[in-house]
Amino acid sequence: MNDECWGYYANRRVLITGGLGFIGSNLARRLVGLGSQVLLVDSLVPDYGGNRFNIAGIEDRVTVNIADVRDPHAMNALVPGHDVLFNLAGQVSHLDSMADPFTDLEINARSQLFILEACRLHNPAIKIVYAGTRQSYGRPLYLPLDEEHRNRPTDINGVNKLAGEWYHLVYGHAHGLRTCSLRLTNTYGPRQLMKHSRQGFIAWFVRQAVEGREIQVYGDGQQRRDLTYVDDVVDAFLAAGASDAANGQVLNLGGQAPISLLELAHLIVEIAGQGSVRLIPWPDERRRIDVGDVYSSYELIQRTLGWQPQTPLRAGLTRMVQFYQEHRRHYW
Amino acid sequence: MNDECWGYYANRRVLITGGLGFIGSNLARRLVGLGSQVLLVDSLVPDYGGNRFNIAGIEDRVTVNIADVRDPHAMNALVPGHDVLFNLAGQVSHLDSMADPFTDLEINARSQLFILEACRLHNPAIKIVYAGTRQSYGRPLYLPLDEEHRNRPTDINGVNKLAGEWYHLVYGHAHGLRTCSLRLTNTYGPRQLMKHSRQGFIAWFVRQAVEGREIQVYGDGQQRRDLTYVDDVVDAFLAAGASDAANGQVLNLGGQAPISLLELAHLIVEIAGQGSVRLIPWPDERRRIDVGDVYSSYELIQRTLGWQPQTPLRAGLTRMVQFYQEHRRHYW
Repeated sequence: MNDECWGYYANRRVLITGGLGFIGSNLARRLVGLGSQVLLVDSLVPDYGGNRFNIAGIEDRVTVNIADVRDPHAMNALVPGHDVLFNLAGQVSHLDSMADPFTDLEINARSQLFILEACRLHNPAIKIVYAGTRQSYGRPLYLPLDEEHRNRPTDINGVNKLAGEWYHLVYGHAHGLRTCSLRLTNTYGPRQLMKHSRQGFIAWFVRQAVEGREIQVYGDGQQRRDLTYVDDVVDAFLAAGASDAANGQVLNLGGQAPISLLELAHLIVEIAGQGSVRLIPWPDERRRIDVGDVYSSYELIQRTLGWQPQTPLRAGLTRMVQFYQEHRRHYW
Repeated sequence: MNDECWGYYANRRVLITGGLGFIGSNLARRLVGLGSQVLLVDSLVPDYGGNRFNIAGIEDRVTVNIADVRDPHAMNALVPGHDVLFNLAGQVSHLDSMADPFTDLEINARSQLFILEACRLHNPAIKIVYAGTRQSYGRPLYLPLDEEHRNRPTDINGVNKLAGEWYHLVYGHAHGLRTCSLRLTNTYGPRQLMKHSRQGFIAWFVRQAVEGREIQVYGDGQQRRDLTYVDDVVDAFLAAGASDAANGQVLNLGGQAPISLLELAHLIVEIAGQGSVRLIPWPDERRRIDVGDVYSSYELIQRTLGWQPQTPLRAGLTRMVQFYQEHRRHYW
């Protein structure tokens, strides 16, 4: 897909929750280029993904509203007048959800009800695209995962993200809201949180390599994952937001061929031109919620919206590594 | 199963949340007979199922503690020292969950985390049996529903009950708690709430017949359901509580042959010796969250715990009708 496809977004009023975060800010940058009027809502909770540097260069072309989706009133005031809501605010750390399940529930479940109620009451015509997660499937019964695979999340974050997703579907069929969910795989690229390792392995691998350090891979490193470059994820959100074909649906994103974590670590070291790789035993707290080999089928979204991943892994990782080599002081 | 099977429960300390409710109180009555020391926790929230008359005759042989599972401290104080927790407290009305999704979330999701945290911190050896619901599957892709059927709840209550169930499973595999969930179908029998029609159709049908009124059945009345008599449900809880074979599992209950709602209404009228039946159009708010024909396979619990439904529908309904003919003043 290229930007000519997205005439829909010219002059549209678009609201992004989690708008200063990784995917939200990349989406905002594209939307600004497409001529949308963009409102970014973000809590800037420390340790989460929000980062003002993520909108460097477009600060004057977006509106930023600092608010927490846990605030029951903020969304009532912010939702009216918008055409599309990209609902990306979330607590994304699986480990944090196990240490503090209540905060995870507040953000990923309860706040989603605030947002949906705000839309139902104050802007029922708005189109809503929710950021779901492949983690909802839990340990795969078969691969690649398709949307009919049963859900059995292995951690509290997976449970609450799924509740948040299903609220969207329930508000769709019961209240007529135009909602859908994209189940993201491992997304990577510029503007990802790098401060700690609790939001996923790719960013952490890249940070170690950019610092010339050792990348530690758990177990034998043979567990395979698919990765989606953030620009491709942005394409999927744009496609879902502009089309009613996705309404009421859960759609998997997916990457190109799955890669083992060990291969990935070596590839990142090669691209960065520094760093090293070492296998270490699983830490208990991570082993217990790990899901093994996982990758998704994107056949349904391809059929429904014409989306497929475009960015080769090496190209995406190269852009990511270069971004952090240049901008690390804003992310470390 | 008969009571000789349940030597396990002699002198056991058993905690039942929702203990003054329909299933909780029937379970308590059996446990008292088996020699357990029973603590019933119930909020007695008006319009929910708790009713002091449900323990008439055993008041002196159980301990009652009025507390709301939404109270974050109560469970910490109540959980220690117990061998088994039957976790039955819940908001069970699908319609109420759509009108007030936040209360449903507080009770069916957030409070379950309080309960599980209390167990993890203060009594990690306790055995926990959670009351899940067949509603979690949503509209069936095939029948009878088995445990591998994908979940797609159609209302907020279904979402939150599923979150509550999965918290139990996550605390099982991640924290080592001995948890399992029984997914109940339509349970019927004595001590069920009769004050309003928002907790299911069977009780409401019985009330109309006992009052000699007209039973209104939606649509053509051909939607089929399976029903489980409460004594059989109690057997399933006892079996799950006494065995570690169910740990980490979700197990469907099921009824004998499914019956259409129209046939059921006529059967109830016949048993009650009064009342009548009329088909009426679907009210919109109910049609939107209805799931059509639904019935479950109980093959897995039969294989795992030896459970199967024992009570013929006519016998169960006869006992239910007689109970309310005698005790209606305590339930209307």
